[in-house]
Amino acid sequence: MSLELPRLASPGALLTDLYQLTMLQAYYERDMLETAVFEFFARKLPARRNFYLAAGLEQVLDYLEQLRFSQAELEWLSGQGTFKPAFLDYLAQLRFSGDVHAMAEGTAFFANEPILRITAPLPQAQLVETRLINLLHFQCLIASKAARLVLAAQGTRLVDFGLRRSHGAEAGVYAARASYLAGFDASATVLAGAQFGIPLAGTMAHSFIQAHSDEDAAFEHFAHSLPGTVVLLIDTYDTEAAAQKVVELAPRLATAGIHIQGVRLDSGDLGDHARRVRAILDRGGLNAVTIFASGNVDEHLIQRLWQEGAPIDGFGVGTHLGTSSDVPALDCAYKLQEYAGTPRRKRSEGKATWPGRKQVYRQYDDEGRCCGDTLTLEDDAAEGVPLIQPVMRQGRRLQPSPSLAQVRASTRQELQRLPLALRRLEPAADYPVLVAPALRALADTADRLSGLP
Amino acid sequence: MSLELPRLASPGALLTDLYQLTMLQAYYERDMLETAVFEFFARKLPARRNFYLAAGLEQVLDYLEQLRFSQAELEWLSGQGTFKPAFLDYLAQLRFSGDVHAMAEGTAFFANEPILRITAPLPQAQLVETRLINLLHFQCLIASKAARLVLAAQGTRLVDFGLRRSHGAEAGVYAARASYLAGFDASATVLAGAQFGIPLAGTMAHSFIQAHSDEDAAFEHFAHSLPGTVVLLIDTYDTEAAAQKVVELAPRLATAGIHIQGVRLDSGDLGDHARRVRAILDRGGLNAVTIFASGNVDEHLIQRLWQEGAPIDGFGVGTHLGTSSDVPALDCAYKLQEYAGTPRRKRSEGKATWPGRKQVYRQYDDEGRCCGDTLTLEDDAAEGVPLIQPVMRQGRRLQPSPSLAQVRASTRQELQRLPLALRRLEPAADYPVLVAPALRALADTADRLSGLP
Repeated sequence: MSLELPRLASPGALLTDLYQLTMLQAYYERDMLETAVFEFFARKLPARRNFYLAAGLEQVLDYLEQLRFSQAELEWLSGQGTFKPAFLDYLAQLRFSGDVHAMAEGTAFFANEPILRITAPLPQAQLVETRLINLLHFQCLIASKAARLVLAAQGTRLVDFGLRRSHGAEAGVYAARASYLAGFDASATVLAGAQFGIPLAGTMAHSFIQAHSDEDAAFEHFAHSLPGTVVLLIDTYDTEAAAQKVVELAPRLATAGIHIQGVRLDSGDLGDHARRVRAILDRGGLNAVTIFASGNVDEHLIQRLWQEGAPIDGFGVGTHLGTSSDVPALDCAYKLQEYAGTPRRKRSEGKATWPGRKQVYRQYDDEGRCCGDTLTLEDDAAEGVPLIQPVMRQGRRLQPSPSLAQVRASTRQELQRLPLALRRLEPAADYPVLVAPALRALADTADRLSGLP
Repeated sequence: MSLELPRLASPGALLTDLYQLTMLQAYYERDMLETAVFEFFARKLPARRNFYLAAGLEQVLDYLEQLRFSQAELEWLSGQGTFKPAFLDYLAQLRFSGDVHAMAEGTAFFANEPILRITAPLPQAQLVETRLINLLHFQCLIASKAARLVLAAQGTRLVDFGLRRSHGAEAGVYAARASYLAGFDASATVLAGAQFGIPLAGTMAHSFIQAHSDEDAAFEHFAHSLPGTVVLLIDTYDTEAAAQKVVELAPRLATAGIHIQGVRLDSGDLGDHARRVRAILDRGGLNAVTIFASGNVDEHLIQRLWQEGAPIDGFGVGTHLGTSSDVPALDCAYKLQEYAGTPRRKRSEGKATWPGRKQVYRQYDDEGRCCGDTLTLEDDAAEGVPLIQPVMRQGRRLQPSPSLAQVRASTRQELQRLPLALRRLEPAADYPVLVAPALRALADTADRLSGLP
């Protein structure tokens, strides 16, 4: 008997905003069931992000395929006094039967470029707004942050340590996915390993050291317990003294056939400690023992340590990754672009949108680096590679999704194709995104149809 | 037949860090099963928080009561090659059988004050670390942010609009809980209403307006569809023009017995628009129609609008609440304080902890405001009210938990008992927390036992 892999359960159809359901009832009662087109995009890039990285499409497709109201959910809704029986019957049979076009996960994108389009009867396309944003926003957020860490680390091993300070269970598991996709090497989150096959890694906690009568005993006990991957945490009391203990312990372990793989630093000036610990280990003949660092690590610290030549072989990144601490939210939206064949446009101050079904064409220079995008209508032509492709038709995936490993490999190429200025941590000039004349013309049409100047 | 209320499912026992499981195997093999004491606390307050608010205890107790490894989880672990059959058998029967002491939800707390203590056999107390921090950290984070919004709003209605940009499903639902606990009036998140009985609120989206041929038709349709709570979104095209349409629509609706409850602003300068819209509504005889504002709202904007006397009757707060955007993570920890009857202490640079089982005593002045805390050992005496109380013994709750409404009411009192300087948004001087001599003496003892100076 083979059991299903452990995974996060769906939160169900009630993970939405109340207004989606009240608007749906209004649409249902007035028979406003014609085709609507919504697109998800992000507005202006914050100063600390030179590009966004698309992620989370896979979870959106799962959500759309599985969307339905359970008996318990319908019964609860029925008790609220807001929803009429005929509408609840309609909800009971509601499934997502629309089309989805999207950029592949791991694609870099910029302000105002849609990364996902929903084409579906208005109530369906409206209903899915909240959860769709909730899923896409978070993984794009984390993948975009993780990409900066990956670029700063220049190949140094990166492990996601973020679960404990992530914002709940999904945040922890999906941050592991988004960061692995963006190039992280492993995660400490066991459920992310089970659900997504992400390689797992981990060392030991301070409490393990503290629970033993002395540090030497803790090290020795741990090494015997996990002989395959011995990484010893050495900052509980005195980092350099502990490094010396590791040197003394190594020959004893070697006689038992156990080799110490690495030590972990988790406090103080990580560069200074790494240099001193490296010297102690090398003097003790432990040149092969690696140094792994954690504790308040972000991309700026990694860059500084790398520039200083700190002898650090890997980083555990927790809070700054798992919460995208410098930019904990993106200014993104899911907006109606067309209803019943007519282009639609919002004109709210500072939040105006481009109407219609759009395509993003990306141009590349002779060295294969992307050098400019054109934002235009789906049926308009432009130079470059069209990034938005059909992925779901009438509620069903068009093809099996690529594996996470495949997405990770293509993301790696994607980061290499970015202009150098965008790969740096420092703010770069805006990447050129041209709004094509056809799109501008449609915006004017949409305004005229709404009676606007 | 009554179905269960819709609620978030548990993510299971694999929502943990890999090292918890490898350390557990080491403890199990070496029979290190004696009683351990861990405490959860936060370190230094960030400049933008004058106090923390305790929240999330309820979810921690649920987690501890339900903790077990399923067959699917055990089978998956067994396939990893790291865990031995005898240890997996041990995991299969593992339940949480320990004691929990904690501060009540809604209690204000400060740096280094524990808000929760676990007393349990070492493997249990260790295993629960990751999820316990994941649950407590997030709700404390959001409740502490929400309290600032509540204090700035001075009684103005506050609604949680955060789900879409929250970090996943749990973040959305638990942010609704934590903000309601801290004094918010309602949430837009339907599942939070179903799971916790939080009042729900919502208006309409721009897409609803856009999907209609014109704004007037959208307003009228919406009003007829939801006659009990008509709140019209008026910024899709031109805010003041839309306010004028509302004035013209009102008498027509009144003949159908429908009264417009409010309008919502979602862009531009909310204070300016509110003043102009208020004037338009008042001139049109709609003095009873309220103005609700949303769009990038945080506590500083609310305070400024309140000081300016902007005629705003309620705020929807989304991203800044749901991600605690200015402080998206707290520096908190869950640390071993005692094992097998011996006090334990970590001495890592900048991260040293106070050992032993602790109590926090809170003193109040003549006006009933708290004026100082004493942090000491559980068996030491001090002036004031002891805040840490037993809540679970041998894995079972000692009493039914207070309702969320009760916690919200006591939190309201708690905020009124805070010193005025702490209730302001501006950084205040540190609240006085005295470390008692008995605790200092125990720290010295713990250092001596670890052979430290």
